[in-house]
Formats: sequence, C-alpha cells, structure tokens
Amino acid sequence: MLFYDSPNPAPNPRRVRIFAAEKGIELPSREVSIPQREQKAPDYLAKNPRGQTPILELDDGTVIAESVAIMRYLEALHPEPPLFGSTPLEIAQIEMWCRRVEMILMPPVAAVWVHTHAFTAALPGRNTEWGEANRPRVAEALEFFDSSLAQTEYLAGASFTAADILLLTTVDFAKFIGLETSDGLENLSAWHRRVSARESAKA
Amino acid sequence: MLFYDSPNPAPNPRRVRIFAAEKGIELPSREVSIPQREQKAPDYLAKNPRGQTPILELDDGTVIAESVAIMRYLEALHPEPPLFGSTPLEIAQIEMWCRRVEMILMPPVAAVWVHTHAFTAALPGRNTEWGEANRPRVAEALEFFDSSLAQTEYLAGASFTAADILLLTTVDFAKFIGLETSDGLENLSAWHRRVSARESAKA
Repeated sequence: MLFYDSPNPAPNPRRVRIFAAEKGIELPSREVSIPQREQKAPDYLAKNPRGQTPILELDDGTVIAESVAIMRYLEALHPEPPLFGSTPLEIAQIEMWCRRVEMILMPPVAAVWVHTHAFTAALPGRNTEWGEANRPRVAEALEFFDSSLAQTEYLAGASFTAADILLLTTVDFAKFIGLETSDGLENLSAWHRRVSARESAKA
Repeated sequence: MLFYDSPNPAPNPRRVRIFAAEKGIELPSREVSIPQREQKAPDYLAKNPRGQTPILELDDGTVIAESVAIMRYLEALHPEPPLFGSTPLEIAQIEMWCRRVEMILMPPVAAVWVHTHAFTAALPGRNTEWGEANRPRVAEALEFFDSSLAQTEYLAGASFTAADILLLTTVDFAKFIGLETSDGLENLSAWHRRVSARESAKA
C-alpha cells in the first residue's frame, strides 16, 4: 500500500499519521504538495476525484479516500490497540465524539480558514462576513469540549481514542490559522498537554 | 432503551429508523417535536447538551447522541445484515461514502436550509448570500453522486449499506426544502427509486 500524504499544517493527513504511529504501523508514503496544488493534478484526481489528501492506495490499485476511512481500514487490519472501541457502547461513544469534533468544531474552523485567512485569498466564492461570523462558533465549540473534558482524561472516556486524534489535529490547525484555542479553558489545555506529550503527536 | 425521535422531514432521526427497519429492530421511542423546540427544553438538554435529535437512552441512563453513533451501536448489537461492512475494505469504503455524503452534500443542503428557507427565518445569524452560494454546490454534489453511481447499484458497491441511508435521507430532505435533486441525473434517479422501494424507506 502507498499513503499519499501532505505535511503539516494539513490536519487530515496528520490524523492518519498519528493513528498509524499509535498502532506501530509504518506506512510507505508519497508527499502531495498542497501549496503546489498537486492534489488537483490529473494523475491525482484520477485516484481521488475530490482532489483532497490523504488517500491510501492498495496494491491492486484500489483507493481509499477520507482520513477516517483510512483509519478504520488500519484498525480492521491491526485491531490492537483499539482506537475505535471494542464493546458496542465504546464503539458508539467514540463515534459520537468523532462526529462532534467533525460537526461542531471542524466546520467553523474551516469557514474561518477558507473565508478570512490570507493564505486562501485566491479561493473563489469567499464570504468574509460568513467567515468572521464563525469565529465565535469556534470559541463556543472549544468551550463545549472543555466542559466535556471536565470529568474524563480523554474525549470518549478513560482511554485515548480516534476522537482525541480528531480533536488534537483540529485544535492544532485552528492554532496555525491564528485562532485562540486555550484562553481560560483549563480542561482542554490539560488534555492538549496530555495528548501532545504522546510520541504519536510528533507525526 | 428509549429512542428520542423526531418525525419527517428531520433527516437524522429517519436515518436511525431506516437502519433499525433494515435490521428488523423495534425501537421503543418517544417523539421530540422540533417545531415546538422540545429539543431545546431543559430536560432534553440534560440528556444531550447539543439540543439535537435523535438520541438513544440506555436502561442505565447512558445517552448516545448522533445518528451514526446510534446506528453503529445497533450494528454492534445486531450484526446481521451488516450495513457498515465486514471485511477491512468494505468497512473502509462504506466509511468513505458515508463521509462523502456528510462532507460534500449535507453542508450545502444545510446552508440553503438555515440561511434561505422560510421555515428558518427566525434563526439568528442568517447570511442569505452564503445560503444562495450553496445552491450550486448542492447541484455539484448531486452530480458527483450521480457519476459515482454509474457503475454500481449502491453507493459503496453491490450491497445496500449505511451510506445509502445517509444519501437517501439527505436527498429527500433536499427535496423537502425545494431543491431540485433529479433533473438529468439518471443514475441518481434510478438509485433513488431502488432504495425508496425498500420497505425500510417508509420509516
């Protein structure tokens, strides 16, 4: 298999790198440069018509796109340690928290990025008012995760899971684009130090 | 367990109802009226601080929020027929297609709904320009799914899966809010007839 990767600050490829590091999986990889728009080149679009990284290409040419789909593929091949849960309730709670990161935090962070950041100024269809309106939504989302982390070490409970990987990569991307992510949020800050201290966070 | 449900046209509770029908599971349920904003009442917010339906409350009081998290819980308890896949590749491809529905089609449909529809006129923070800008994105997304369905009976391949449930409920909600969903899209239209003919689609 071959992992088509893009370096930081791209949050989605990093999810897979952290996941693989937690599993002890070495993924043969090829870099796709987003600043050079290699993800929009014809040979890449033939593999993923959405023009996004990462993808995982299997030896028979089958392509798995979408970061979490690749993570689930790796989990199925390498079940230990389980990062998507083992019992029905763990499976459900990890999925719930993964979706909350995707639905509550990721969209406003992406809106600020796409509609207000200097690095995306050339994108068509920018709406500055919409981008600015999402800044307080990022703050509200971070407060929600801060309060959710008041009682537990990790997002879905006592164990580090895929949900923590999604939150870490999103928070770090939010920081990269200049959003304040820790001001007064003690639980979230403590969690961030805890997950960032793991060897996998260097990925 | 008790399923907190909201009737059509709410798309997310319907996902779970279709999923349960495909599995032959009868879910004891209680209706939460969205027009009457019962999902924002204190007793409901105590169960799901996000103020959204559906949720599944277990007998010990544990609450699972997020439609797909509930579907994964039901899949873990009732594995047959598998709707999230069995082999590593099936699991990955179904997740990929679920995410494509969520990331490509659902956000522009939701933006048109929240920012332009008469039924949501009282919501704070509406941005009509942003809502209108999403209409062509809905059309582009539907074209993508139409071309994706050119070679396969169902979204993730030869079998009906959770990804079809997500696409069906999103397309039907898009129709409800007045978006054109089938004009000239023959593969998508044939797929829609196929999945709508299943007994579960009445849910």
